[in-house]
Amino acid sequence: MAHDRKAVRRVLDRAKKAGRSALSAPEAKKICDAYGIPVPREGLAKSADQAARMAGRLGFPVVMKIVSDDILHKTEAGGVIVGVKSAAEAKRAYARIVANAKSYNKDARIGGIQVQKMLGGGQEVIIGAVTDQSFGKLVAFGLGGVLVEVLKDITFRLAPASRRDALSMMDGIQAAEILKGVRGAKGVDRAALSAMIQNVSQLVSDFPEIAELDLNPVFATEKGATAVDVRILIDEAAANHRPRPSREAILRSMKRIMNPRSIAVIGASAEDGKIGNSVMKNLINGGYKGEIYPIHPKADTILGRKVYKSVLDVKEVVDVAVFAIPAKFCAAAMDEVGRKKIPGAVMIPSGFAEVGEDALQDELLSVAQKYGVRIMGPNIYGFYYTPQNLCATFCTPYDVKGKVALSSQSGGVGMSIIGFSRSTKMGVSAIVGLGNKSDLDEDDLLTYFEQDPHTQVVAMHCEDLKDGRSFAEVASRVSKKKPVVVLKAGRTALGARAAASHTGALAGNDKIYDDVLRQSGVIRAKSLNDMLQFARGLQVLPTPKGENVVIITGAGGSGVLLSDACVDNDLSLMRMPKDLDTAFRKFIPPFGAAGNPVDITGGEPPSTYANTIKLGLEEKRIHALILGYWHTIITPPMVFAKLCAEVVEEARRKGIDKPVVASLVGDIQVEEACEYLYERGIVAYPYTTELPVAVLGAKYRWARGAGLL
Amino acid sequence: MAHDRKAVRRVLDRAKKAGRSALSAPEAKKICDAYGIPVPREGLAKSADQAARMAGRLGFPVVMKIVSDDILHKTEAGGVIVGVKSAAEAKRAYARIVANAKSYNKDARIGGIQVQKMLGGGQEVIIGAVTDQSFGKLVAFGLGGVLVEVLKDITFRLAPASRRDALSMMDGIQAAEILKGVRGAKGVDRAALSAMIQNVSQLVSDFPEIAELDLNPVFATEKGATAVDVRILIDEAAANHRPRPSREAILRSMKRIMNPRSIAVIGASAEDGKIGNSVMKNLINGGYKGEIYPIHPKADTILGRKVYKSVLDVKEVVDVAVFAIPAKFCAAAMDEVGRKKIPGAVMIPSGFAEVGEDALQDELLSVAQKYGVRIMGPNIYGFYYTPQNLCATFCTPYDVKGKVALSSQSGGVGMSIIGFSRSTKMGVSAIVGLGNKSDLDEDDLLTYFEQDPHTQVVAMHCEDLKDGRSFAEVASRVSKKKPVVVLKAGRTALGARAAASHTGALAGNDKIYDDVLRQSGVIRAKSLNDMLQFARGLQVLPTPKGENVVIITGAGGSGVLLSDACVDNDLSLMRMPKDLDTAFRKFIPPFGAAGNPVDITGGEPPSTYANTIKLGLEEKRIHALILGYWHTIITPPMVFAKLCAEVVEEARRKGIDKPVVASLVGDIQVEEACEYLYERGIVAYPYTTELPVAVLGAKYRWARGAGLL
Repeated sequence: MAHDRKAVRRVLDRAKKAGRSALSAPEAKKICDAYGIPVPREGLAKSADQAARMAGRLGFPVVMKIVSDDILHKTEAGGVIVGVKSAAEAKRAYARIVANAKSYNKDARIGGIQVQKMLGGGQEVIIGAVTDQSFGKLVAFGLGGVLVEVLKDITFRLAPASRRDALSMMDGIQAAEILKGVRGAKGVDRAALSAMIQNVSQLVSDFPEIAELDLNPVFATEKGATAVDVRILIDEAAANHRPRPSREAILRSMKRIMNPRSIAVIGASAEDGKIGNSVMKNLINGGYKGEIYPIHPKADTILGRKVYKSVLDVKEVVDVAVFAIPAKFCAAAMDEVGRKKIPGAVMIPSGFAEVGEDALQDELLSVAQKYGVRIMGPNIYGFYYTPQNLCATFCTPYDVKGKVALSSQSGGVGMSIIGFSRSTKMGVSAIVGLGNKSDLDEDDLLTYFEQDPHTQVVAMHCEDLKDGRSFAEVASRVSKKKPVVVLKAGRTALGARAAASHTGALAGNDKIYDDVLRQSGVIRAKSLNDMLQFARGLQVLPTPKGENVVIITGAGGSGVLLSDACVDNDLSLMRMPKDLDTAFRKFIPPFGAAGNPVDITGGEPPSTYANTIKLGLEEKRIHALILGYWHTIITPPMVFAKLCAEVVEEARRKGIDKPVVASLVGDIQVEEACEYLYERGIVAYPYTTELPVAVLGAKYRWARGAGLL
Repeated sequence: MAHDRKAVRRVLDRAKKAGRSALSAPEAKKICDAYGIPVPREGLAKSADQAARMAGRLGFPVVMKIVSDDILHKTEAGGVIVGVKSAAEAKRAYARIVANAKSYNKDARIGGIQVQKMLGGGQEVIIGAVTDQSFGKLVAFGLGGVLVEVLKDITFRLAPASRRDALSMMDGIQAAEILKGVRGAKGVDRAALSAMIQNVSQLVSDFPEIAELDLNPVFATEKGATAVDVRILIDEAAANHRPRPSREAILRSMKRIMNPRSIAVIGASAEDGKIGNSVMKNLINGGYKGEIYPIHPKADTILGRKVYKSVLDVKEVVDVAVFAIPAKFCAAAMDEVGRKKIPGAVMIPSGFAEVGEDALQDELLSVAQKYGVRIMGPNIYGFYYTPQNLCATFCTPYDVKGKVALSSQSGGVGMSIIGFSRSTKMGVSAIVGLGNKSDLDEDDLLTYFEQDPHTQVVAMHCEDLKDGRSFAEVASRVSKKKPVVVLKAGRTALGARAAASHTGALAGNDKIYDDVLRQSGVIRAKSLNDMLQFARGLQVLPTPKGENVVIITGAGGSGVLLSDACVDNDLSLMRMPKDLDTAFRKFIPPFGAAGNPVDITGGEPPSTYANTIKLGLEEKRIHALILGYWHTIITPPMVFAKLCAEVVEEARRKGIDKPVVASLVGDIQVEEACEYLYERGIVAYPYTTELPVAVLGAKYRWARGAGLL
């Protein structure tokens, strides 16, 4: 159904002209009609007699409600009477409502009484829309009733929502089962509900001045859905848009910043312990092959390189300027960087907004924007990009190449990334500090990593998203190709939100992040360790081709714990077909258990592990393996690791590449075995059954979101 | 109110005599009356006229229900009519119900029609009772209605429940807020509901043949609660009791087993690689000071010790016999062990129930029971007890002394305990394998560790509890003194449960474990790694004296993540009083943030960490500290670790001992710093903000459960 935008525009303009922020019921009805949102049959009565006639036409019972711009809370004012069953009752109700309204507010201007066909039965649900500072327009869906209000069982999507989004909302609430019909009740009309969700989301997208909207309750039956009460709030401020550079413009700068032909270090120093010295050393010792230009007002050479007094003195093209000078000198230096047409500035210095010096940061940014210089930071450790052997940072160098790009808003988390990477031998393509995010932020990085052949997984720590909507848009696209992991910190510190609508009051900030990140195909890490482990594990695991997961274990006890972890991580333990069961049984002792987990029992020689793993890899109906190894004298840890790596390698040579994760329980020798396995693409951990399954679960979550399963 | 047991006995005996398993409504009412469970006013009518008179007396409206032993599902049979409003309606309803019943089951014997005062308003809740195989009688509480049925929002406690238990049930459901009154509704009468819960739990405890009971719905209002429908099922099998040795008897054996003066190794061997050889070596090399008697039919000496052909040949007292012979020879050897009056047998051999040889295991057990020998296992790695330098196991020796005792049902988990302990330098008092648990199980071990001065924390892995009720009883007592951590595996594999009652159908096995473990003061670990980390951390952390937790951090980013973790772990971030805020500000830069987290900022020297930690320790209103360290050149990891340990040590010397946990983010040097800190009683982890807070959270959960806070 086409939407009648003109009708909505007329209603909104009239309300704005009258200086009203809340629409009246008849106005709201007009808007619903224009956007195909079913509301009960109704009319506006100006007298008791008219109300009685109208009710007769609509059919009893009816609901009667006050219409007054001066009365916001109708029920509180005694302005609503439900279950009116006859003409006589309708007349009495008219008089009662008017009297109640007058006694509630003697100056209230009364526009009449709305007479509405009363609906019964069906399931009460809420559909609404809110405007979020970071994400913009969001559509919400939840069940009605006091229980749901207490349990906060509501879900959000970016507006406009697709049909798929809308349907996913109905499955995304805790009490989803109710919508399917329980205790003999009929299921609701999913098509009608999803159409209503989509229409609401389109309405607020088309008219951004609609700040909040509530359809509460909506009665959903097995055929159709009707919004019984509609509440619409308008606010011009809700219509603001943030300007964003185009994808092309972002890439033009980012490609030069990440792959610079040359780098200027502003504030380079020959003195040990100075940041400008550490940056120089890291660039040189890291093996960066481009030109390095130290900038310093007095020195002649630093670390054997010729020094320039200003970037303007450098004749050649410069792609990146790393700042290592005090905050107060940055704006002036930035002017030179701008005039030199350097596309990127890495702002290591602190002393800006993070210490309350917002003015200094704004000044810096405005100079940069004048010249189109993109700023990384300020208040960052810099960045690493291993394909270029680039350590543009004052931290310890790190150069182990791998396929994951990481970023952090916080320097502390950045240091964790370095330490964890070194400790667990995790290869990376990039580590980027975003700090104050005065300019460059997560969506710029994502835009670059999307097309970067050296990056196959992206993992990001953030405390906020400056522009959640942009991020979601880019992430939705990138996550179709590469897993994107996000650790959103500050998730439990829900800012109190002033909200005039019911939906608004239910919109806990973190719930919105959770829903929108999922809608964008992002894997949300719930802890720092999860983010790091997912970054490390996802890059080596191949993408599964189906949902059938099989556990092969030497320890029955591990099998139970691994099964628990599968349920926790939404993995499907394959129901073992009879022929496959027989095939596994051929290799295991008679008292072992086939089925799933395949329990090969503890005392088995290496060949039992090898045979069963081989079978699991070569069998087409199995899509991923979880191994549970148990340290024994018969099959020591490194013997297991080697046979396992060999069997997996052999399968890969035949073109079979399935995700394999492993839990190794035993004495400390299992640690070396896990390292050996990880280096060969098998994600293995000692002393934990849950972590390998969590990593596999993250890979599956991504693959499902990307539509690969 | 005293309970009228005789009345209940009469009703139950009559039903049993009639061979019925379901009680009729009038019978159920009698039982409710006898146990002070309010039900609506009602009567039994034998004719339409009598029903009309009765309804008039009770006051309209009434509900009328069929009474027939032959009709179990009254509503389905058309045997219930609600909202009967007049004498004429009552007469018609009588006829209708009888006709419906006859057409539903023409042979149904009709005992009359129950006429019941119809109640309205209030909150619908369910109170019920079930009989669990492991835990015995349990009382259940939940909200009524379809939503709760879908969300499975129900909670269990062991019956009989104390008043405190009953009250905790009302707070223990997700939708607890509803009971307090929302949207202007009045809160329910908590005293009336808790009395009803207690009465139900007492009833099923007093009459164990009551297998299941449902009060569904109960109408709870602001004054009182009434059970509108009562369903009681009886089953003699539900009354079975498991025999248990007394605490004294358990301790008599356990003390000798854990502290043996001498040990016989049945199947000792001189041959490398044999289990009987490993056991001998581990006993000798572990430093065990008692006598060791190798038992072997042919050898003369093994590892320099004189060999005996049978334990009967040993003249001295023997306290423990470790078995290292094939399963089929065990029963015969056990007979000798029994005749020798050895109190404990460590049954390492496998080949019993775990491979389907139940008969062999039963035989072994019956021989042991004849003589009163307690069996550990079979199918175990043995056990370690460090206070006696005892490694009665074939696994690698482990002798680092500490204060935590661990046990595992699975050998694989046992090996994880050893590997993890060695890797993280965790001291232990005991590690015990329980394997098939033919005899000794978790409650025997808990009974020993309760009085063991070497053990201050107990951590147990189990897949089932043979006698959950015994375990809960012992754990409730022990957890008042020492933290008890339990990893219950198999928690997600909920066995389908055949249940005739509503409560029974809602009783997911894992939910029962969860509730009863909490009721018993047990800290449930959700993963293997959590169990191990809690075991390691809890033993070194002192008990907090209050709820006020303060975060002191050098990394703002860590502060945010640590705050998230506090919310996840139910820790209370202290609201910083003004004077304390001022006191902290004295030490930190002007742009740092006091409040909580105290953000000292990243570039600070060691003295800032030292001063703020010292203040946190010495300030009486603060009860626990969480530190967030950030690796810098100014305060390197080991400098931080040393100053931190020193400040904590200094406070301890002054008698101040507060739990301190730390998250260290940085390059790999933070790993050494974390080890250093742990050795000095500060639970510190690298690259994770969540784990230190989780350990502190576990300590708090325990302290609260033990009534120490």
